[in-house]
Amino acid sequence: MKSPQKFPVRARVLTVAAAAVIGAGTFGAVSATASTAPKTFTETTHLTAGSAVKAAQAALAAAGKDGQKVSVAVVDRNGNTVVTLRGDGAGPQSYESAQRKAFTAVSWNAPTSELVKRLQQAPNLKDIPGTLFLPGGAPVRTEGAPVAGIGVAGAPSGDLDEKYARAGVVALG
Amino acid sequence: MKSPQKFPVRARVLTVAAAAVIGAGTFGAVSATASTAPKTFTETTHLTAGSAVKAAQAALAAAGKDGQKVSVAVVDRNGNTVVTLRGDGAGPQSYESAQRKAFTAVSWNAPTSELVKRLQQAPNLKDIPGTLFLPGGAPVRTEGAPVAGIGVAGAPSGDLDEKYARAGVVALG
Amino acid sequence: MKSPQKFPVRARVLTVAAAAVIGAGTFGAVSATASTAPKTFTETTHLTAGSAVKAAQAALAAAGKDGQKVSVAVVDRNGNTVVTLRGDGAGPQSYESAQRKAFTAVSWNAPTSELVKRLQQAPNLKDIPGTLFLPGGAPVRTEGAPVAGIGVAGAPSGDLDEKYARAGVVALG
Amino acid sequence: MKSPQKFPVRARVLTVAAAAVIGAGTFGAVSATASTAPKTFTETTHLTAGSAVKAAQAALAAAGKDGQKVSVAVVDRNGNTVVTLRGDGAGPQSYESAQRKAFTAVSWNAPTSELVKRLQQAPNLKDIPGTLFLPGGAPVRTEGAPVAGIGVAGAPSGDLDEKYARAGVVALG
Amino acid sequence: MKSPQKFPVRARVLTVAAAAVIGAGTFGAVSATASTAPKTFTETTHLTAGSAVKAAQAALAAAGKDGQKVSVAVVDRNGNTVVTLRGDGAGPQSYESAQRKAFTAVSWNAPTSELVKRLQQAPNLKDIPGTLFLPGGAPVRTEGAPVAGIGVAGAPSGDLDEKYARAGVVALG
Amino acid sequence: MKSPQKFPVRARVLTVAAAAVIGAGTFGAVSATASTAPKTFTETTHLTAGSAVKAAQAALAAAGKDGQKVSVAVVDRNGNTVVTLRGDGAGPQSYESAQRKAFTAVSWNAPTSELVKRLQQAPNLKDIPGTLFLPGGAPVRTEGAPVAGIGVAGAPSGDLDEKYARAGVVALG
Amino acid sequence: MKSPQKFPVRARVLTVAAAAVIGAGTFGAVSATASTAPKTFTETTHLTAGSAVKAAQAALAAAGKDGQKVSVAVVDRNGNTVVTLRGDGAGPQSYESAQRKAFTAVSWNAPTSELVKRLQQAPNLKDIPGTLFLPGGAPVRTEGAPVAGIGVAGAPSGDLDEKYARAGVVALG
Amino acid sequence: MKSPQKFPVRARVLTVAAAAVIGAGTFGAVSATASTAPKTFTETTHLTAGSAVKAAQAALAAAGKDGQKVSVAVVDRNGNTVVTLRGDGAGPQSYESAQRKAFTAVSWNAPTSELVKRLQQAPNLKDIPGTLFLPGGAPVRTEGAPVAGIGVAGAPSGDLDEKYARAGVVALG
Repeated sequence: MKSPQKFPVRARVLTVAAAAVIGAGTFGAVSATASTAPKTFTETTHLTAGSAVKAAQAALAAAGKDGQKVSVAVVDRNGNTVVTLRGDGAGPQSYESAQRKAFTAVSWNAPTSELVKRLQQAPNLKDIPGTLFLPGGAPVRTEGAPVAGIGVAGAPSGDLDEKYARAGVVALG
Repeated sequence: MKSPQKFPVRARVLTVAAAAVIGAGTFGAVSATASTAPKTFTETTHLTAGSAVKAAQAALAAAGKDGQKVSVAVVDRNGNTVVTLRGDGAGPQSYESAQRKAFTAVSWNAPTSELVKRLQQAPNLKDIPGTLFLPGGAPVRTEGAPVAGIGVAGAPSGDLDEKYARAGVVALG
Repeated sequence: MKSPQKFPVRARVLTVAAAAVIGAGTFGAVSATASTAPKTFTETTHLTAGSAVKAAQAALAAAGKDGQKVSVAVVDRNGNTVVTLRGDGAGPQSYESAQRKAFTAVSWNAPTSELVKRLQQAPNLKDIPGTLFLPGGAPVRTEGAPVAGIGVAGAPSGDLDEKYARAGVVALG
Repeated sequence: MKSPQKFPVRARVLTVAAAAVIGAGTFGAVSATASTAPKTFTETTHLTAGSAVKAAQAALAAAGKDGQKVSVAVVDRNGNTVVTLRGDGAGPQSYESAQRKAFTAVSWNAPTSELVKRLQQAPNLKDIPGTLFLPGGAPVRTEGAPVAGIGVAGAPSGDLDEKYARAGVVALG
Repeated sequence: MKSPQKFPVRARVLTVAAAAVIGAGTFGAVSATASTAPKTFTETTHLTAGSAVKAAQAALAAAGKDGQKVSVAVVDRNGNTVVTLRGDGAGPQSYESAQRKAFTAVSWNAPTSELVKRLQQAPNLKDIPGTLFLPGGAPVRTEGAPVAGIGVAGAPSGDLDEKYARAGVVALG
Repeated sequence: MKSPQKFPVRARVLTVAAAAVIGAGTFGAVSATASTAPKTFTETTHLTAGSAVKAAQAALAAAGKDGQKVSVAVVDRNGNTVVTLRGDGAGPQSYESAQRKAFTAVSWNAPTSELVKRLQQAPNLKDIPGTLFLPGGAPVRTEGAPVAGIGVAGAPSGDLDEKYARAGVVALG
Repeated sequence: MKSPQKFPVRARVLTVAAAAVIGAGTFGAVSATASTAPKTFTETTHLTAGSAVKAAQAALAAAGKDGQKVSVAVVDRNGNTVVTLRGDGAGPQSYESAQRKAFTAVSWNAPTSELVKRLQQAPNLKDIPGTLFLPGGAPVRTEGAPVAGIGVAGAPSGDLDEKYARAGVVALG
Repeated sequence: MKSPQKFPVRARVLTVAAAAVIGAGTFGAVSATASTAPKTFTETTHLTAGSAVKAAQAALAAAGKDGQKVSVAVVDRNGNTVVTLRGDGAGPQSYESAQRKAFTAVSWNAPTSELVKRLQQAPNLKDIPGTLFLPGGAPVRTEGAPVAGIGVAGAPSGDLDEKYARAGVVALG
């Protein structure tokens, strides 16, 4: 079973993972999880619920400052929704859109505005269940690897949605 | 319609929202709901069930006058279906199509015939769950903000469908 | 085809419906159902279960003669599946494909090979739930109006699928 | 193919079916459809959309007279929803409940208040998809056979719900 | 809470509704919405998103004080989820349970611990889609009528869950 | 039934499986598949589509002889639907019921009328997705092991449904 | 069990959680995750994919030794399926049953054979989506807290299923 | 691959099927199943569960060697999932993607990288439920006919995914 010394090892691996992300701008998925085969257990990093709420509220507040009505979602690295927030007056389509944008951002560790561009090479990526290729999703990273996604929907443009999603990320410090 | 004097504070806010809509032709969602953060409760405006039925019947009658067989749906601002009406002889695809057109129209406060054009800039909007980007959906507005959507499907063209949806809106006075 | 004398009142109305179909090559849905507002009840025409099985078997046999492995479905005018038949060795995708092709053909009263062409004008038709715009679906008509759809899937080309679907229609006499 | 003389035959069969219903309080399903094997087509009887709306409105009005807030649904003999009507202020659970009660009533040609009793002998009937064994559903019959179901939900008791559903049936004359 | 003077007409009707609730301990649904037939529009009352978050956080904090790991949901009167919050370490079953408890509480305007008792008379109530008859859901009322439900799940007992849900209600002032 | 000489190696193994079934009256699942670990491939036995149709038609005919209106389904050992057949005038609940009864019968290699009794010991068996514990399902066996299930629904009693399902099995010779 | 010294801060909290489990036989959910509010991130423990496969294979092998045909699933603490394994000849109902048993075991950190007993006090627990209250699920714990669930289905009794699930747990060492 | 001597009668028929595949490079589905109408039963070939796990592990290991984090699925010829394996750190979108790629590959007996090209002629193939037209799926064949599909998802490119899927096929020997 894991000795405490192993924890530093894990951090090292994460650093490598982060380097891969930074260096490669890779298309695929990267992860904060580092596992080697013979281990029984592995650790994954998540936003706390408290932080996730804080990020969602920051995104909503940023939209409110612009007079925009949006919904917000925070999804963890395994695709589980942690927080959803249906803003006052946000269109009914925004609630599930926000979740899907968050899911998409954390899946590929990139803002959805960038992921939209990838459809030029691989247009059928957008057929993957749970995804939505519209601007408004932003990944939350720790040591370069994605641990959560924040999605915003309902503003007049996807760029605005993504501005608010980024405000959510920034609020995490 | 309610006189503005009855709900003085709220009406003012709604007027502002309406102005934003009229002035901007915005792409995103607008709303009849006005909320400021410290309030505990907010009010939203809905078609009464009686009015929704009247609108649906008017849409069906307009189609019948043209000898067209359609289904009709009325959806409120939160995406909840208020009325559905499967017309005699309407194709089986029309029932859910009508609901989705209504949902789409109320989500973006525009007729779906206009929303179809927006796909040129943002083609993946049509991947948002619950939407359908085909003519035949019309928003119901009060003070410029969307409170409901009426969707019609089953006629030989989407333009006809939308003509009947508009007849439903007109019936609301 | 039934002569109009047989059901004097009803048949007259149906004749009109049929005429509309024949004269217009319309895009939308037409129907064997004729209703006038003040009536409480209306009649709709359906394939008997026995006929639906016969048609499905004929389609399967036609495919078998060509050495093709397919699935077959018969759907009524209201979109309800009447018969499904998973052919020996047919691919797993064929079963639901057949149902959707049948649904699509009966919805618009046209072979799906023709309906595919309509996507050029209205590409989002294919987003309507339950539809599939691939050749292989054929409508069953009585007096020109659609009462059922037969769908076939699994052959190496949609044209072959549709050949077998037509064989199913022909078997109904 | 059917000769006009056959139509009297059909009525006779329906009479028999009705007799079976009345005399037996049978547990299973009966039907307004009468088919003999060699026929290609059969006719089924449906409420017109106009009648279905009238019935739904009558049910809603009956509830309103009692100050109750309900949703109403009308489902045809094949289980297809013809009309739904979400009443003002009705609880969110009422909308789908009304549809399921209507579906249940038309499936077994009996008010759901009676069908609830049948669970004593066959408790797992309530596991059949689409059903709901709560009072509030009433069948619409023609010549004793079920052609539609009306479901009401949202009143403080199922008995009240069913009173309004029956008011819907009565409105059909 | 809003004083009745602010919305003189509407408040009167609401008072009646509230009276019905208080006097009767009624089984069915009541509502903050008051509509009379000839009106085109009606208003419904909702928690603001900000208040809903505050309530959810209060519920989560109350659980945290007891060392319990739970998920929380706030659902509006139309059944739309406004806020979800998956607490750190809460069991995976808690997330959807919380939503269903909130939905159930707002549907019948009662804590789910009371609604569980109603199953003795009407055991099939629990088959209504979207509901869950376990303690842990509490209604949010304004003037006696339900406008939202708060659901909590994941604690070792439903009574604890409901204690936290009530803490959420209390936080609304 | 196939003679053992035809597939000498495989049949031996199957005989063992059959023996286990006969000897034990076991509660769990048995199978016509015999695999030993190091093999890459294994064979499973299925009804041909032609036989499945024949069985379904026989079940429908048996119901028709009694004047009963039913739906029929044949499901293979892996739970895949092979044939469905919605009988003329069968209630709308019968179509999916038939599939679930067939699924249940093949899952536990017993008529569903017997499986209902097992709920006394293990009442939650009926919560397994896809199952329905009502009489009307019958397994199709080869060498004692289940290869398919036939389900019938819509008759006034489950016993009648099962009589027709058995007629389907008998038709396979 | 890991000694608390190994993960000084985190382990202490976990020890408390474990103690609660051991001392109370609590009804609710416990967790390997320990978070304090001001932290942005938290760590959760998971089985590695390699270990999950090993456990699933061990469960399958244990069943094979008894001549039983089963399916196996491993689900992590967040309810995400990590491994599924459809055994040769296992009944079609076993695949999803195994997942639900695993989900149920990890949700309440107890074998499902024990959880079944809890239904006596709270029978509606079994209505929580994703759960199945049948023996055959076993939790995987680290420091007393649940990190995964192993579910087995398809044997003639739930007790056998659970025996194999436990064999899967044992294989993790 | 199995030598024909092992299953003399059956293999002959399979050889014919295989020949059809090799000779035609057909677009549609081919199958390891050979049935002639009068037979009651037919045999289909499947990977054993043990082999399926082995293939999935080989695919995962190949990805691991490249430092890629993926999920893997093995689906049989009838579309039933046999094995799923969520790799450590694989993106949440990878789990269902892998299943769909496997399903797509076995449906048309070709690697999904080739099937993507077929969309040029028949773009709506990708609307068939359960499919995903992205590289990463590979068929498993016996005697030329498809018996299973292996799908991999989560690597930075579909080509990498497919490389690992092929490694899974190779591991079957």
